[in-house]
Amino acid sequence: MKKIKVAVPATVANLVCGFDILGLALHEPCDIMELELINEPIINIKHTDDYGLPETVEENVAGVALQALIEAYEKPIGFNLTVHKNIKPGSGLGSSAAGSAGAVVAANHLLNNYFSKEDLVRFAMNGEKLATGVKHADNVAPCIYGGITLVRSAFPLDIISLASPDLYVTVVHPQLEVKTADARQILRKDVKLKDAIKQWGNIAGLVTGILKNDIPLISRSLEDVIIEPVRSILIPGFAILKDLCKEAGALGGGISGSGPSIFMLSENEFIAKQVEQEMIKVYSSMGIENKTYVTTINPNGVKFISSE
Amino acid sequence: MKKIKVAVPATVANLVCGFDILGLALHEPCDIMELELINEPIINIKHTDDYGLPETVEENVAGVALQALIEAYEKPIGFNLTVHKNIKPGSGLGSSAAGSAGAVVAANHLLNNYFSKEDLVRFAMNGEKLATGVKHADNVAPCIYGGITLVRSAFPLDIISLASPDLYVTVVHPQLEVKTADARQILRKDVKLKDAIKQWGNIAGLVTGILKNDIPLISRSLEDVIIEPVRSILIPGFAILKDLCKEAGALGGGISGSGPSIFMLSENEFIAKQVEQEMIKVYSSMGIENKTYVTTINPNGVKFISSE
Repeated sequence: MKKIKVAVPATVANLVCGFDILGLALHEPCDIMELELINEPIINIKHTDDYGLPETVEENVAGVALQALIEAYEKPIGFNLTVHKNIKPGSGLGSSAAGSAGAVVAANHLLNNYFSKEDLVRFAMNGEKLATGVKHADNVAPCIYGGITLVRSAFPLDIISLASPDLYVTVVHPQLEVKTADARQILRKDVKLKDAIKQWGNIAGLVTGILKNDIPLISRSLEDVIIEPVRSILIPGFAILKDLCKEAGALGGGISGSGPSIFMLSENEFIAKQVEQEMIKVYSSMGIENKTYVTTINPNGVKFISSE
Repeated sequence: MKKIKVAVPATVANLVCGFDILGLALHEPCDIMELELINEPIINIKHTDDYGLPETVEENVAGVALQALIEAYEKPIGFNLTVHKNIKPGSGLGSSAAGSAGAVVAANHLLNNYFSKEDLVRFAMNGEKLATGVKHADNVAPCIYGGITLVRSAFPLDIISLASPDLYVTVVHPQLEVKTADARQILRKDVKLKDAIKQWGNIAGLVTGILKNDIPLISRSLEDVIIEPVRSILIPGFAILKDLCKEAGALGGGISGSGPSIFMLSENEFIAKQVEQEMIKVYSSMGIENKTYVTTINPNGVKFISSE
């Protein structure tokens, strides 16, 4: 096998109370990537979408991730990569993570799974470093492992695959710009101990709910008293939208990544679609263009479409 | 049935990174309590130990817990209570929680389980309020539910019974006085966000390890970067003791409750006893009297010994 085509899912990082540690993979949206293994030690990148992303290896998230993989491989190899991006850059849905994670998962398949999943996360983290300045793993981990993942520690890397509850996810991407760097800068460096205790109670509850498939417990634990009160200031309409979605039956939700996308979890498709209507209503009434998705948690991460 | 005898276990609260939320029940030490149901609306308390604890209802942790239970019951009732305490007050092993939790569990048995476990925790929290000034649930919950419990939230009360891993617990109680109030006062009101993130990664890891019975993950997650660095200052010998116990094979451990007792988890009895030897060595070399226990996690909490 020399060539492979994969679908690479969007991801939700900073899962409510699980800032910097919990993330999940979605079924939609997803990028389509075609990767060809070549014997020359070069990487050629071509984008077929209109996002105007750089195609130079050193400036491309997939490029630097593939470079890290090539350096760790035993023989000189190279790749031809074609990317069709559907996950909009800057949406808060793990667009850069999809680029770097998708490329290394596809490459590893062409190399007969020479590397472990943990290795792949390490390579893909180079893409995150390029995109955000920080080598974080909370989007690339669910993209590679699927389902809901815990990054217990980034250095040393310790990833635990939790589970993939049978839940619906409704996402709205209001067409606002929130820069990850701004979203990080706005955070306070210190937090109150009593808030931290509340947060870790909810994290422990959320993880327990996910592992025991206890949906009411998941719902009760979906509360973030530390990050959301600060970051939601950057997203107009956040508070009212969250209230309306919960009234419509959503289990809970919050900011996806560093925003501006907002996600909500629901028990079934009917509720998830009601939630979508509330999201559209809020942003349409504010005159803000928006794109919505009703999807489910993706248990597998990157999906192989075809190979030759 | 009018009379019951129960064994009420010691508990470890503030389970390393799980400050204020995670606790576990031990098999030893345990208090012995005898409770008799009477028709008069009075509570008589007698201690057969030498700790000199108050026997007036309003000043006794079991007294105030029973009072709360009586107020919630449909008919006027009262109790004769005899307590033989083996869990030393001020040891950090949930001595006051054992008093209040044991009394209400025994009472509920005499009332044909009229109340739920959650009700019993609420009644017992009155004893904690009397003993420490705070209505916390992280000792009474494992004492009543057994195993390892999560108090996701104290107000409103939300207790989740996690699991009871097959682990050994070695405990040392150095005969030092650490007042819970002092241990609370020494804590900083603010913590660094980056430390809080590290802590909640470990909490999520610990809970996952407990639920999946993943012992290496439990071990990796037994790290407290927020409370222990501050509180351990009050416990001479803590740092060296911890190092030696881990060298002897302990999975990890920390301060029990607010101290001065220290506990360590181990995979088997052989290691747990090696760990005990290290503990004795440290405190004996410092000339500090100490009492040690090698025990296991108690899956059931309060145990019924006999009834008539």
